[in-house]
Amino acid sequence: MTTTAPKGLEGIIAAETEMSFIDGTQGILEYVGIAIDDLARNSTFEETVFLLWNRRLPTQSELDAFTQDIRSRYQLPAGLEERITTLPKTAEPMHMLRTMVSSLAMFDSDPNQNDPDSARDKALNVLACAPAIVAAFDRHRRGLPVVAPDSSLSIAENFLNMLNGEKPTATMAKALDVCLILHADHGLNNSTFSARVVISTMSDVYSALTAAIGSLRGPLHGGANEGVMRMLNEIPTVADADAFITGKLERKEKVMGFGHRVYKAYDPRATYLKTLAKQLAEDTGNQDLYEKSFAIEKVMEDAVAAKGIYPNVDFYSATTYHCIGLQLDLFTPLFAISRLGGWSGHVIEQLSDNRLYRPKADYIGPHDAPYIPIAERG
Amino acid sequence: MTTTAPKGLEGIIAAETEMSFIDGTQGILEYVGIAIDDLARNSTFEETVFLLWNRRLPTQSELDAFTQDIRSRYQLPAGLEERITTLPKTAEPMHMLRTMVSSLAMFDSDPNQNDPDSARDKALNVLACAPAIVAAFDRHRRGLPVVAPDSSLSIAENFLNMLNGEKPTATMAKALDVCLILHADHGLNNSTFSARVVISTMSDVYSALTAAIGSLRGPLHGGANEGVMRMLNEIPTVADADAFITGKLERKEKVMGFGHRVYKAYDPRATYLKTLAKQLAEDTGNQDLYEKSFAIEKVMEDAVAAKGIYPNVDFYSATTYHCIGLQLDLFTPLFAISRLGGWSGHVIEQLSDNRLYRPKADYIGPHDAPYIPIAERG
Repeated sequence: MTTTAPKGLEGIIAAETEMSFIDGTQGILEYVGIAIDDLARNSTFEETVFLLWNRRLPTQSELDAFTQDIRSRYQLPAGLEERITTLPKTAEPMHMLRTMVSSLAMFDSDPNQNDPDSARDKALNVLACAPAIVAAFDRHRRGLPVVAPDSSLSIAENFLNMLNGEKPTATMAKALDVCLILHADHGLNNSTFSARVVISTMSDVYSALTAAIGSLRGPLHGGANEGVMRMLNEIPTVADADAFITGKLERKEKVMGFGHRVYKAYDPRATYLKTLAKQLAEDTGNQDLYEKSFAIEKVMEDAVAAKGIYPNVDFYSATTYHCIGLQLDLFTPLFAISRLGGWSGHVIEQLSDNRLYRPKADYIGPHDAPYIPIAERG
Repeated sequence: MTTTAPKGLEGIIAAETEMSFIDGTQGILEYVGIAIDDLARNSTFEETVFLLWNRRLPTQSELDAFTQDIRSRYQLPAGLEERITTLPKTAEPMHMLRTMVSSLAMFDSDPNQNDPDSARDKALNVLACAPAIVAAFDRHRRGLPVVAPDSSLSIAENFLNMLNGEKPTATMAKALDVCLILHADHGLNNSTFSARVVISTMSDVYSALTAAIGSLRGPLHGGANEGVMRMLNEIPTVADADAFITGKLERKEKVMGFGHRVYKAYDPRATYLKTLAKQLAEDTGNQDLYEKSFAIEKVMEDAVAAKGIYPNVDFYSATTYHCIGLQLDLFTPLFAISRLGGWSGHVIEQLSDNRLYRPKADYIGPHDAPYIPIAERG
């Protein structure tokens, strides 16, 4: 029996998950039943990844062991750093990250094992190395020496240390850690679905995560998060925000960072992030950026909140990312680092009860066509 | 409205295509309406790719221009060969190919353009470079100098020349060309679906093709084609084939290269390939291998043909690949080189009428769970 699905598989349930629950109408996002705002305020990225992969919070000793395991893998495999620092400096970081995550398979002596322990092992390799890959490339293209990972630091602290060559302030580290928590999982989005489709051939974790990174970079997916920062850069001062946004609304142009295909209420990921963005902007002398954002939110609130258009997670992420020193084209790689937690969890879920994804295509071309010899073609 | 799809999206039509039509019951495969056997006997891989991408056969001048365009791209981008010849020699060629195809994006000055002409341009880059990537790595790991591509040769001839360091015989080149035609497209298989899912974020051709390669390497997909050769190697002589297969059937073990999820008749791709495999085996002194295969087919014909279990395309591919000098772990990369024609065609189709693939997951975990402080966890 065949059924024609709506385009884009819209409304089709294509997997089961025990990881994230989204209620867009009420503005709810839960990881394993825990409200995202609770996690953002109280958890860490490492603990959140444990939660997603194990469907429960760890005990202290479990968390210590898990954190230690991740940190012991911070160091890139021998030779990989040189492969990064010999890349064209003009390369887009997402192409670089996709390629380097793919290449990790070749530095794993047994990359194709998909039993539960091995799959976690490979996922940890990627999760632990991805920040070092992104930071090494960014230092390379800026002509700066690569900073070695520091296994005394959390993923967030270590990434900022490798990127900026100095330890982050507590606020910076906390803000980045919150961003990593907020973006870690979000249902069966396109990149997560890509990862599940690829692993379903019993391929390997590296292949699945590589596919997901390739998906995420698209402008209809993760690539959208650069747009908010571009828009903020277009607005000269806080005083110009009102007229800028009002003009956009009059011309019926899209205001970046507002509205979401899923959420018709305030994006639950944006609440705490807004508070952090404000403090971080003050700490780093970027008050203007926060105030511009806040002014935009006010204009939008009066104009379109009644239609269910609210700030989404991208909106205050932009200020946050800018304040912690991320260049624009590192916004999506950072999203990828976070989402590796979710992608890997979905790969583990898929492997635990796998069936090959093999839908059908509807053939709408001709039949019984002759092979006409080339001399006789018109 | 939501609908729960069967696992693996089985029976769900998830795309339209004008490229390949499969009727498994009757044993029909057509590309744009032309029977696969007609194409295998009369066409070339280059012409078949043109057919798939343009939904019609080319005129002579169009074919000449298309062929010339491909050949002008045989040369790897500057620096890429060195990136290949510095890889660990133990790497699996599919991990290598996935990584190197991904890296091509970084050597493209404008990798993200998805308009029709640009998408074809990127697809041609990958199609033209993939054989050189595979051959360069294989030469590297065998400790042999890399052979430069020769733009006077077809894709099949050029690949064999780069791989073996000598021009292939006409039979070898024809046999490989036929294999490339036969494997170029096959409906919405997992790797093709992966490519369509990834490009639907408006990501880029490199990301989509990289994802497809990662999918293909799985043992439930392209990775299966090594199994036939492994089985042939297990059978000492032609005289042992009968007992070997009869024993497998008695123990209800799978006989590699027989049966297909789609085909319940003779795989239409196997017919002409069988003839070519025979001639090639004679030419290259591998008659034993062909005769072993033929003996297996006879046993299977008497035992299970009535149940709709026939040789599939993998069965005589194994003899063919062995005779043209391919090592076992290059079988799947060769499949990838061929399927790049189909994947790219599907990417072009998807881009022409795109909608983001974004199915839903059914959340089956808990709700309203508290965040319990770590000291209080049991």
